[in-house]
Amino acid sequence: MLPPMSTAFERAAAAVRPLAAAAMAEASARQDRLTKPRGALGRLEGLSVQLAGIAGVCPPPVPAPAAVVVFAADHGVVAEGVTPWPQEVTAQMVANFVSGGAAINVLARAAGASVTVVDVGVATPLPPACDGAPGLLRHPLGPGTANLAVAPAMDLATCRAALDLGAQLAADLVAGRPPLAPPGTSAAGLLSAGPGGSSAAPGTSAAGLLSAGPGGGSSAGARALVTGEMGIGNTTAAAALVAAFTGRPAAEVTGRGTGVDDAGLARKTVVVERALARHAAAVDAGPLAALAALGGYEIAALAGFIVGGAAAGVPVVVDGLIADAALLAAERLVPGVAARCIAGHRSVEPGAAAVLDELGLVPVLDLDLRLGEGSGACLALPIVEAAARILAEMATFDAAGVTDKDP
Amino acid sequence: MLPPMSTAFERAAAAVRPLAAAAMAEASARQDRLTKPRGALGRLEGLSVQLAGIAGVCPPPVPAPAAVVVFAADHGVVAEGVTPWPQEVTAQMVANFVSGGAAINVLARAAGASVTVVDVGVATPLPPACDGAPGLLRHPLGPGTANLAVAPAMDLATCRAALDLGAQLAADLVAGRPPLAPPGTSAAGLLSAGPGGSSAAPGTSAAGLLSAGPGGGSSAGARALVTGEMGIGNTTAAAALVAAFTGRPAAEVTGRGTGVDDAGLARKTVVVERALARHAAAVDAGPLAALAALGGYEIAALAGFIVGGAAAGVPVVVDGLIADAALLAAERLVPGVAARCIAGHRSVEPGAAAVLDELGLVPVLDLDLRLGEGSGACLALPIVEAAARILAEMATFDAAGVTDKDP
Repeated sequence: MLPPMSTAFERAAAAVRPLAAAAMAEASARQDRLTKPRGALGRLEGLSVQLAGIAGVCPPPVPAPAAVVVFAADHGVVAEGVTPWPQEVTAQMVANFVSGGAAINVLARAAGASVTVVDVGVATPLPPACDGAPGLLRHPLGPGTANLAVAPAMDLATCRAALDLGAQLAADLVAGRPPLAPPGTSAAGLLSAGPGGSSAAPGTSAAGLLSAGPGGGSSAGARALVTGEMGIGNTTAAAALVAAFTGRPAAEVTGRGTGVDDAGLARKTVVVERALARHAAAVDAGPLAALAALGGYEIAALAGFIVGGAAAGVPVVVDGLIADAALLAAERLVPGVAARCIAGHRSVEPGAAAVLDELGLVPVLDLDLRLGEGSGACLALPIVEAAARILAEMATFDAAGVTDKDP
Repeated sequence: MLPPMSTAFERAAAAVRPLAAAAMAEASARQDRLTKPRGALGRLEGLSVQLAGIAGVCPPPVPAPAAVVVFAADHGVVAEGVTPWPQEVTAQMVANFVSGGAAINVLARAAGASVTVVDVGVATPLPPACDGAPGLLRHPLGPGTANLAVAPAMDLATCRAALDLGAQLAADLVAGRPPLAPPGTSAAGLLSAGPGGSSAAPGTSAAGLLSAGPGGGSSAGARALVTGEMGIGNTTAAAALVAAFTGRPAAEVTGRGTGVDDAGLARKTVVVERALARHAAAVDAGPLAALAALGGYEIAALAGFIVGGAAAGVPVVVDGLIADAALLAAERLVPGVAARCIAGHRSVEPGAAAVLDELGLVPVLDLDLRLGEGSGACLALPIVEAAARILAEMATFDAAGVTDKDP
């Protein structure tokens, strides 16, 4: 009897390795021979050592081009009045991403990164501009999650499907394959059937990379991945996950998201408290059950995407609160993935700070962004790339004939 | 009788204008219509408004390509034992810059910026690799400054010559002219005679831009300037200037530079105190006299360069302590130039923090760098450019058909 076929997420989880110690030691030693005072490049030096550990070689390759994936989904918890934005904005923003007019499109183009948008469960109909749009993958796992304040956001099977989808997409982007194509299917022949069952009209989608700038969409595959997301209401789900995984009280990890007022923040905090009380058993049952009960389709897909990127040996540059919540879920599911991630930006959301604190990650940037989409991570890409270039391209004291203070 | 010919610095000083209020108001209003929650792009929004004010138009042009200028000079104050690095490292690093092996070369290439190196007074002979090297301008103002602990670092005429040199170079780079070419001289026919008299062998230098990356060295001219410097001992001069211009005590603004130990820091602080006491009359006499007494050739040239960039209507992205000290001198000489500058990086040097505090500038990056050369400013360039792109390229709520929370 054949063993059961493993899923993309299971394969990725099994493939995540510790950082390569030898390459990191070599990178550290090389930094000390470069023509600058030791340590004078600060965070760039640590980043270069981490990149060597991720790639398993020193100097590490420049992690470009990067591929941004924006996972979009809706959240039943909006019924609790946790956000001033109407739910149809999720669908409208998907159209904006596909048209290239959102912040993440601009920032990805500037960084030479591609943008792929995945509908993993948008509740309202996508605008006509999305029909057949390149760069949009339609794999809805449902018409938005259930309201996590009163029921599990999704069942375990759907959560597993989201993890698989994210892990498979990461593997495909790094391999330079058509994303989420069934085995043996060409990019042109993709169907939109989601692994967890689709609520979208079948056969209407197209698949492919939206090449969004110089160096983007290389068929040779992405050399870094960037976590993007869109989903009205998703900061509530993320805060609930952060509270569940860190044990911190709701009030400590719940923030204003894209702009609730004081009354809205208080309401949101109560919703997170109710969700934690209602799903205490799921939280106790382990990270998969917690992610299903409190998460979102896009958050679970991001967790899979992060594990997939870690397995593929490329750095995963993580954006704000939503991606941080997904990263924490990923680390609980597959310990070791966080070491292969780079926090792109210090979100102003308290839940994001809690995750970075918990995982010991120091963000590259601190620009007061509170947008999501992958924007902060995308802005960090040139600095991450510069860290690799420093190690590869700078002259050593010996080679340049410069006198070292402490030879 | 004809009026006396004004200098490059005087012309630049007269040409610095307040930021364009109308363009800034337009930029702010446009930010509020872009498809994101208001303010969600944090610092990028403020940068985009500043860029509009600098350019006088909304949206502002993308400030690329940038031109980095590394002004290199030596400091007589090294006789006081303020640094563990031997003085010949200044000359050796000039050779490293010219060969493309220093950190600033790597970071400029990554950012698509050109690098121009100017010897404004290196004390020891430049290595043979510098002979005829493209991208190196030789305009020495003397064989290093005098020891500022016992005498004025330079006389007023030399300080004026350094300001002129910097202002002229900024104007040339923005205009796309051969840098520092006498009127009517082609780039190939440049001589190395410095305006303040040269200690270098005449006729041995070449001039021109070292094109150092994609987009670098455009004959159409630089659209942003980056302040770079090299000079063993120059953090002592910079600390003295910061103390003089801010009135803060030496102990508060003197730091470890490129790595002095506790004893070295104490010695350095005493040197700054002695210099302030000795040159109190010069400090009282005004910013030019203070800059001459306590500064360095490269610091005075940087002050002129900053004024020149401000006059030319391009953003000047300022690096760490040395450039901050030059910026403070420039602002005292020509009030209003700081509004046209962007602090690239928060240096770990206390004197740098004092300047940014004094001028109300918030740095773009905080990466624990303590190198100088222009490294931190160069790393900030992609973010400054992204700020301009956001304003020009993002869709508005109306255009994208996205529902605004507060229409």
